Amino acid sequence: MKPINVGLLGIGTVGGGTFTVLRRNETEITRRAGRAIHISVVADKNLALAKKVVGDSVRITDDAFSVVTDPKIDIVVELIGGDGIAKELVLKAIENGKHVVTANKALLAKHGTEIFAAAQKKGVMVAFEAAVAGGIPIIKAVREGLGANRIQWIAGIINGTTNFILSEMRDKGLPFAEVLKEAQRLGYAEADPTFDIEGIDAAHKITILSALAFGIPMQFDKAHIEGISKLEAVDIRYAEQLGYRIKLLGITRRRDNGIELRVHPTLIPAKRLIANVEGAMNAVLVQGDAVGSTLYYGKGAGAEPTASAVIADLVDVTRMHTADPGNRVPHLAFQPDQLSSVPVLPREEIETAYYLRLRVEDKPGVLADVTRILADQAISIDALLQREPAEGEGETDIIILTHVCIEKQADVAIAKIEALPAVKCSVTRLRLEELNG
Amino acid sequence: MKPINVGLLGIGTVGGGTFTVLRRNETEITRRAGRAIHISVVADKNLALAKKVVGDSVRITDDAFSVVTDPKIDIVVELIGGDGIAKELVLKAIENGKHVVTANKALLAKHGTEIFAAAQKKGVMVAFEAAVAGGIPIIKAVREGLGANRIQWIAGIINGTTNFILSEMRDKGLPFAEVLKEAQRLGYAEADPTFDIEGIDAAHKITILSALAFGIPMQFDKAHIEGISKLEAVDIRYAEQLGYRIKLLGITRRRDNGIELRVHPTLIPAKRLIANVEGAMNAVLVQGDAVGSTLYYGKGAGAEPTASAVIADLVDVTRMHTADPGNRVPHLAFQPDQLSSVPVLPREEIETAYYLRLRVEDKPGVLADVTRILADQAISIDALLQREPAEGEGETDIIILTHVCIEKQADVAIAKIEALPAVKCSVTRLRLEELNG
Repeated sequence: MKPINVGLLGIGTVGGGTFTVLRRNETEITRRAGRAIHISVVADKNLALAKKVVGDSVRITDDAFSVVTDPKIDIVVELIGGDGIAKELVLKAIENGKHVVTANKALLAKHGTEIFAAAQKKGVMVAFEAAVAGGIPIIKAVREGLGANRIQWIAGIINGTTNFILSEMRDKGLPFAEVLKEAQRLGYAEADPTFDIEGIDAAHKITILSALAFGIPMQFDKAHIEGISKLEAVDIRYAEQLGYRIKLLGITRRRDNGIELRVHPTLIPAKRLIANVEGAMNAVLVQGDAVGSTLYYGKGAGAEPTASAVIADLVDVTRMHTADPGNRVPHLAFQPDQLSSVPVLPREEIETAYYLRLRVEDKPGVLADVTRILADQAISIDALLQREPAEGEGETDIIILTHVCIEKQADVAIAKIEALPAVKCSVTRLRLEELNG
Repeated sequence: MKPINVGLLGIGTVGGGTFTVLRRNETEITRRAGRAIHISVVADKNLALAKKVVGDSVRITDDAFSVVTDPKIDIVVELIGGDGIAKELVLKAIENGKHVVTANKALLAKHGTEIFAAAQKKGVMVAFEAAVAGGIPIIKAVREGLGANRIQWIAGIINGTTNFILSEMRDKGLPFAEVLKEAQRLGYAEADPTFDIEGIDAAHKITILSALAFGIPMQFDKAHIEGISKLEAVDIRYAEQLGYRIKLLGITRRRDNGIELRVHPTLIPAKRLIANVEGAMNAVLVQGDAVGSTLYYGKGAGAEPTASAVIADLVDVTRMHTADPGNRVPHLAFQPDQLSSVPVLPREEIETAYYLRLRVEDKPGVLADVTRILADQAISIDALLQREPAEGEGETDIIILTHVCIEKQADVAIAKIEALPAVKCSVTRLRLEELNG
């Protein structure tokens, strides 16, 4: 059978890894795909870099648009990133009847619905395993492996930078700013780390997973996002004392009246497998009504792990290439005309439990006032920690773990607590999830 | 689009679960498959049971052969089990141009190569996600998600009965026979538990995974199998002291000169995620050259978890139904004419580390003799534990953890150790795997 022709856009970390792995495992990959997967051309603005990576073995160009309009190219692999030029190139590739394989989470989270509609109309495939959790085949698991289930929720450690930082903060007891510097030095965080540490990257990925799991359009703009830059080492210590770890989780959950879509530091029980995922590793926990709980763990980033996902998609697309478009795996696991209009819930409607840390004057009645306020909002207390103030100090910390309630109840309670004269400064609030079904 | 017609053979636990989940999640499943999946007929020797489960909604019969020869049936789901009548029925279904979905690990481990060859020849699909690790989509992960990798090894906790027993032995410090009784009482072990506790069920499953991972024919008869019935509580305690847990693992590994295929109790470092998989849960660790280490965890058995896998296959097969046979996912992930002839290695060639427990007379020179014997076989010692004998007792235990060596070296060393006059009874030998790459 003739080889399938691939145009690679972007020869950076992932592009280089894709090229390398395709070459190294060519025999196994060809055996699995049933035909050779041939990179016909590599496009990158930096021709010198391209030449360095691919040598003389492949034609190189700095004109990416020539690739997406070239009639000899069957599949375009977009590894440029971002939602600028990448969006134009992807849409042009689709317009020209080419399948697309991409690792671009930002592009899909913001423009996925438009891109998939265009692809559906044209009868081409858009595959994106590499966009979420690197080499872990999570997209395939949710879209196909768990296809018999009504997904109830997904919770994931899907950003290696923040997970590395949190592991270090816990292991060494150091403050965030210091660990961030170390992470940058070691290459786990970028010079401008905002996307990662403020949770935006994780939000892109959980947005994609929510669309897949619930058959809704991608609604990144509705996600509630909080990163780790305000997390204090003292809260990691208190959480540990109470039997919890703090992880930056991307969470999406089906509720009666809508879908939750959120990213934030979360206390999770230390005994959960996912609580023991350390360093730059990723893990995604999925709860389905038939299968129950399944967990997927592995490297979430890196040249070869991400390339593993890109090439798995290339093999899939190659296999599907001659199939009737109506019978291909729908990009979003649901046929596009079947997308649900269930709304993404606003922050105030989130249903979760809380860790609250208050700094209070050590005088009688404070605890009674605080617990009364919570009771008035129908918020039950699961655990409470209060310590004797140190000698001479008139202030102490009170730590409260609540049971599940609605965020707007917590908002009201916290505002009232902060208004108490004995409560010094604002209340630290972290969400808590038991993750047990 | 017209519904696809399914004949269900066997309405036991998994058959009942399949029927229930297909009905409950009909809307989501139809959306995902793009057409309705319709159970046209249910066959079971026990008509009363069939009637009880499906009521009047589906035609029932006690003649399974009528189902596999019925021209209106597109897909046969075989949930009878074993390699007796199930083999005939599966081959007849294939002969009559029907796709097959099965949960039958024993059938595939022993006759898979013959069955897939027949299916390939006829141009029909045989799907078997439910045959390994219940609802965890591990077949899809290895066959497709990790398709870009050269798989190096797979290690799995793939039998819930034995994992439950080992968790209880460790938590409660009880001997095997007592915990087995409790497992039977709770329904985690059968009245005749041989298949599970002697590792045969796990061996069926790891045989299937080895064929998928390495592109070799299924060679169940070549697997080295040891169960947990001889495991003593004292070894679980010593392992724990040394920082290890004992799990029954199915292991398959690529070596320069062949493939290892084995099932046996294994010491693994307590800090590995897989060492913390408890009760009846399953987990499979896969090492690929590009992605590195990935772990898949979830329920390995049960009506609805297994049904989840059966239905995922039904959806896949439904989608692929009109695709060109040459482009479908090859059953073994490799095109059948491309199967490798790399041999499965015999037990003596296994490369692994060991836990050895010796009972010795407490006299000078014993340790020197033992360590000299190991050195002579080029076996290095990683850890050694020896305790002072109790008051009045003249005997003590010596625990040795070796570095990796070849099994035949260990055989020679152990025989010589057992021949020492100071060594009482035979040496307890358990294999040990670090599982770190």
